[in-house]
Amino acid sequence: MDELQLLRKIQARFPPFRPASLVLGIGDDCAIYRPRGAREDLLLTTDLMIEDVHFRRDTHPASAVGYKTLARGLSDIAAMGGEPRFCLLSLALAPWADQRWLDAFFRGFRRLARDTVTTLAGGDLARAERLTCDIVVCGAAPKGKALRRDGARPGDAIFVSGRLGGSALGLQTRRGRAWQRHLRPQPRLELGRWLRGRATAAMDLSDGLSLDLHRLCLASGVAAELDDTIPLFPGATLDQALHGGEDYELLFTGKLDKSPDLSSWDVTRIGTIRKGDPGAVTFAGRPLRPLGWDHFRQAVP
Amino acid sequence: MDELQLLRKIQARFPPFRPASLVLGIGDDCAIYRPRGAREDLLLTTDLMIEDVHFRRDTHPASAVGYKTLARGLSDIAAMGGEPRFCLLSLALAPWADQRWLDAFFRGFRRLARDTVTTLAGGDLARAERLTCDIVVCGAAPKGKALRRDGARPGDAIFVSGRLGGSALGLQTRRGRAWQRHLRPQPRLELGRWLRGRATAAMDLSDGLSLDLHRLCLASGVAAELDDTIPLFPGATLDQALHGGEDYELLFTGKLDKSPDLSSWDVTRIGTIRKGDPGAVTFAGRPLRPLGWDHFRQAVP
Repeated sequence: MDELQLLRKIQARFPPFRPASLVLGIGDDCAIYRPRGAREDLLLTTDLMIEDVHFRRDTHPASAVGYKTLARGLSDIAAMGGEPRFCLLSLALAPWADQRWLDAFFRGFRRLARDTVTTLAGGDLARAERLTCDIVVCGAAPKGKALRRDGARPGDAIFVSGRLGGSALGLQTRRGRAWQRHLRPQPRLELGRWLRGRATAAMDLSDGLSLDLHRLCLASGVAAELDDTIPLFPGATLDQALHGGEDYELLFTGKLDKSPDLSSWDVTRIGTIRKGDPGAVTFAGRPLRPLGWDHFRQAVP
Repeated sequence: MDELQLLRKIQARFPPFRPASLVLGIGDDCAIYRPRGAREDLLLTTDLMIEDVHFRRDTHPASAVGYKTLARGLSDIAAMGGEPRFCLLSLALAPWADQRWLDAFFRGFRRLARDTVTTLAGGDLARAERLTCDIVVCGAAPKGKALRRDGARPGDAIFVSGRLGGSALGLQTRRGRAWQRHLRPQPRLELGRWLRGRATAAMDLSDGLSLDLHRLCLASGVAAELDDTIPLFPGATLDQALHGGEDYELLFTGKLDKSPDLSSWDVTRIGTIRKGDPGAVTFAGRPLRPLGWDHFRQAVP
């Protein structure tokens, strides 16, 4: 069973009592909730950051762990075209996490919180063997305008922001700009907002282009053709760009070639949405397997 | 450093950019957010449930872990007088968690979700060495009507719902009604809603009466006198009732003796709020130390 199958099993268990105010439930970057009488929709996302799973104590500086914990949540808000409003942080400290580590963690966290005007509004504290964080971010978008991953249509162009594979390269070399990219990815909040009303579908690249595009196509019920135009992070291999996770760039679709302002953004057209087997992706004419990061690739026993 | 001191350190780091829409931030059972134009306030809470910290694999049945994961969050919503709207679940599965365990976990979770009309709207999935859950619950209360823990005033009576010490007794004996109470606490959602506009302050008893009342008094800047009228769960000791955690009953204050409907609820008057050292609590005339559950009683190294 992979992550998508597990997600579907969970989804199948929770259909019966979805209230009208929940515009979008399980399966996208955020849930969408419409409070009674409100002028905007709320976007809610939650992301785990666990020692020895998402980061390593001896590899990742504390300030980067703090920064990245929040960045992962903010990237989901960016993917839906939202503006961050506030966040909650659940934090279970490991015995080794001393005051100095904690200070650096919160320095990194706060830097990004301040830059993106994301107030820390609460959370939970505990102790555990492995340091564990769970970030909750609440964002907002004008009513009905949030971007989703299920709106891609045949004929739409496919775009990505930035350059891909930098995070995977950085984790491998632990040097230079690629390492910085791995440690401190930039949630593409401004681009996400600009895409509202322009893109037909969007999501963030957290688990690798091959897997994330597969997911977007599945959600939209379409197939995709990738051209040999993937923008590589300097030094990254094509493999890292196609399958490496944690780039936190935006993947989006639409007839955006006609948009005059498109050129003011660092985005690249990388392919076209096609009719076909939902989820099927080709690269340079050949089938591309969704090899990106999946916690559940090994079968649940 | 204890949990409260750690919380204050975190709080001190995040003051500068609190938007007006965030009615209440760090330090209560939930954060309170007021969406633009909305007719109600949103309450948001998050609670960890970690293997070998909050539960043990060989002690707690999977369905109870699922139930309790959600119950912990719902109890925070009850404490603020809210109605649950939806929840998000972050779940990191341990290698030992097989399909059968997972099915039972979601059976317990869904039972309570259905009973309380709390839709599962999303979350995150991962794998980890220890099974780890983080529940996010979003509830709602009429604008400005959510209960808080900072409103207790000298002269207010102090009340608790139900009988205390059952959860601690159950964890000790693992038998009978006390064990059921430990495994499946009842979030007091109806009582919480009834208390809106009636109680001056409220919170849920998650870490033990002595510690939780201390926190309520600190937040309200008052002291408290407890009488020798603590309602004991059948078989529980006074120590378990005063200091045992996880009863998930409501602790609240106010001039409720005059409320004619009070007698229709299973609540007991246990003392009086006084002027005095903020946080100071006496029991039957003697100082009561806040000995309840604190993850951080041992100093952060």
